Amino acid sequence: MITPITGFSKLKKEEKIDWLLKTYLKDSPASENILKQYWNKNDTVQQLHEEFTENTLSNFYLPFGIAPNFLINGKLMAIPMATEESSVIAAASKAAKFWQNRGGFKVNVLNTTKNGQVHFIYIGDHDKLNDFFKITKPALLNSVSEITKNMRKRGGGVLDIELVDKTDLVDGYFQLHCTFETKDSMGANFINSCLEKFADTLKVEVNNYQEFNEEEKQLEVIMSILSNYVPECMVKVEVACPVSELYDDNHISHEAFAEKFLTAIKIAEVEPYRAVTHNKGIMNGIDAVVLATGNDFRAVEAGIHAYACKDGSYSSLTHASVENGVFKFWMEIPLALGTVGGLTNLHPLVKVALEILQKPSARELMEIVAVAGLAQNFAAVKSLVTNGIQQGHMKMHLMNILNSQNASPDEKEELLHYFKKHTVTHSSVAEQLERIRN
Amino acid sequence: MITPITGFSKLKKEEKIDWLLKTYLKDSPASENILKQYWNKNDTVQQLHEEFTENTLSNFYLPFGIAPNFLINGKLMAIPMATEESSVIAAASKAAKFWQNRGGFKVNVLNTTKNGQVHFIYIGDHDKLNDFFKITKPALLNSVSEITKNMRKRGGGVLDIELVDKTDLVDGYFQLHCTFETKDSMGANFINSCLEKFADTLKVEVNNYQEFNEEEKQLEVIMSILSNYVPECMVKVEVACPVSELYDDNHISHEAFAEKFLTAIKIAEVEPYRAVTHNKGIMNGIDAVVLATGNDFRAVEAGIHAYACKDGSYSSLTHASVENGVFKFWMEIPLALGTVGGLTNLHPLVKVALEILQKPSARELMEIVAVAGLAQNFAAVKSLVTNGIQQGHMKMHLMNILNSQNASPDEKEELLHYFKKHTVTHSSVAEQLERIRN
Repeated sequence: MITPITGFSKLKKEEKIDWLLKTYLKDSPASENILKQYWNKNDTVQQLHEEFTENTLSNFYLPFGIAPNFLINGKLMAIPMATEESSVIAAASKAAKFWQNRGGFKVNVLNTTKNGQVHFIYIGDHDKLNDFFKITKPALLNSVSEITKNMRKRGGGVLDIELVDKTDLVDGYFQLHCTFETKDSMGANFINSCLEKFADTLKVEVNNYQEFNEEEKQLEVIMSILSNYVPECMVKVEVACPVSELYDDNHISHEAFAEKFLTAIKIAEVEPYRAVTHNKGIMNGIDAVVLATGNDFRAVEAGIHAYACKDGSYSSLTHASVENGVFKFWMEIPLALGTVGGLTNLHPLVKVALEILQKPSARELMEIVAVAGLAQNFAAVKSLVTNGIQQGHMKMHLMNILNSQNASPDEKEELLHYFKKHTVTHSSVAEQLERIRN
Repeated sequence: MITPITGFSKLKKEEKIDWLLKTYLKDSPASENILKQYWNKNDTVQQLHEEFTENTLSNFYLPFGIAPNFLINGKLMAIPMATEESSVIAAASKAAKFWQNRGGFKVNVLNTTKNGQVHFIYIGDHDKLNDFFKITKPALLNSVSEITKNMRKRGGGVLDIELVDKTDLVDGYFQLHCTFETKDSMGANFINSCLEKFADTLKVEVNNYQEFNEEEKQLEVIMSILSNYVPECMVKVEVACPVSELYDDNHISHEAFAEKFLTAIKIAEVEPYRAVTHNKGIMNGIDAVVLATGNDFRAVEAGIHAYACKDGSYSSLTHASVENGVFKFWMEIPLALGTVGGLTNLHPLVKVALEILQKPSARELMEIVAVAGLAQNFAAVKSLVTNGIQQGHMKMHLMNILNSQNASPDEKEELLHYFKKHTVTHSSVAEQLERIRN
């Protein structure tokens, strides 16, 4: 019988592991060594990583690698990626190499405005609220001057506060819709601190406003929080080349490849079942760079997928065209990223990733991340419309199965050869291993 | 002048790092030691992780921890999480503790059907295609019998193939919409292998079908790929308790808390700016378990966010009600997960995570992941409508800033105390540190 534990977070790491071992891992005594196997050999490094979050017992490894040969706005770069998914870095590298010979990636940031809201309920006269807001806006802005001091030095700060009437959605629902420029920081803490201060100031000022009656003074702040939906923090990336310089091989001509590629994109634009997986492939590239550079991939995922359905139906983020014999492939996505603050200052490998990228500004990082997304999608759609996705996947998959079966180097070589012509499944690999072992 | 590199993937890890050092890290010689600092002390373990993907140079750490005290369908569990975001595990643990005393989480899997499509273009007589499909369906199903052999033994396999006319979307666009049961595996490789085989068989059979004229025989398969949109692979989770047992403190009554919570949910249901961040918070919990159990968070993210906008507008995934004095909070989400295959067999810490969860089936893992998502959202909304999100965040944020400034234990203690009453910003912490150091 397992009983609840109190004060778990106050225990030392070793005590937490002991509790886990005797509570949930009685049949798995090896788990203790595995958890400890992943501790860093250096205690200071280990402790640093433990303090990133709560109840840390060990370090979960994601492979950290690079995809070289990315020509981005004329600069040749190697992009660091953290991903557990096989083929992602290989696909990125292939797409990079291909476009490096064809003018590379052209990318630019369209805008960098972030936003957040104070959501509140106000039951009363709307004109009075509008008047109150006009009079009170300077006090709201002024109330965060201490919080924004440093950000203003760096050229950022609060851009504007608007009062938005949302009473058509929920009775009495209004927002202070606030916009921010956060320069090289992602800005979540900055924005939330500002918003909570706006909310406090709002409550005080409402109470002091003589025109409001008692009911109107009951204005209630529901919550104050940044939005991860950032359609005014956009980046656009594209590649282009003559159709005659596109892929061809024995199976498909340049023209047929271009046409098939365009059809695949058109399908992803109109068919949600396909669009979801299509965009998932884009995120394979994006998240790998977002993670490696210490940014928050849940924030990026949420913002991008919501943008993908902004017109009412979930749709492809990438688009393609052929005009006058020129193939063009592009994407516009919202991206809120930082290169200072948060993990970027703390995680040593994040620092290395940013060094590899030549210490980018947040704008430059937006560009690099967008490039990784477009490259990944190009590689995926190219595979899909030519050899199929499984050929590349299966080679990595096969290697992983062989490892899980402790195959020797000789066995690996023989079976890599064998499975060039046979379908890889767990059971077929097991069978073949047994065959050559007997 | 940086020049492109060829054959990079063929280099040894040390050679890759050497190239990186002399190409991009000339001004950052310490990077070499940092990359190596994160190698596992055990060469075999290190090599294992390097083979997960391509061009691996090091291991990117995510904290691996647990949130205990989750009462799920009457069973008390500790949930393993891998996340870099502070407060996620703490919030999960708090929500777990709260609901553990109030009946816990009730969760059940609604269905487990996965799907994929062969997308093709057919210009010709639709009736002929329908006839062809009816006649050919058994041959399609039969053609994958070798691939599905093992899956069928485990009770899974291909459920059905439908011909879907999508010509209203794109000229000549049809699908083989295929459904699958993949039991305890996520099934991506299995599904894609089946689909590519269906596509091959389709091409052969089309060519052999005497009724088709030459144009109709030009049927062209564009691509064959699983969908990460899985609205028939759903799990539902809920918590409930009398309003009188909800939170209260000096600032807010049970009833006022319930009402405010419901308003916050209603806002997230109707306002996309809020819904995106609301759901992002759910994903903080979900992805942490998805990662720790070796599943693919990009697939889960894409499927869930697309589901959040299925009705034409991006909306909250969670819902709440109060009826007859009972507060109820619930969520239905699509989740395609595996507990066998892929990383689950390979990553030693993933094996430990699954041991901690008592070796769950894929269905059980769906339940656990959904619970983590609902718990996270409960904790976030609770904070938002009471103390605000920053109070909890800022404590962790402060600790991270203090670490980045190499604060001593004494300095940490003093400033943790100081910042209980002052706003945390990078500059304010730096100022206070300077104050006490002088």
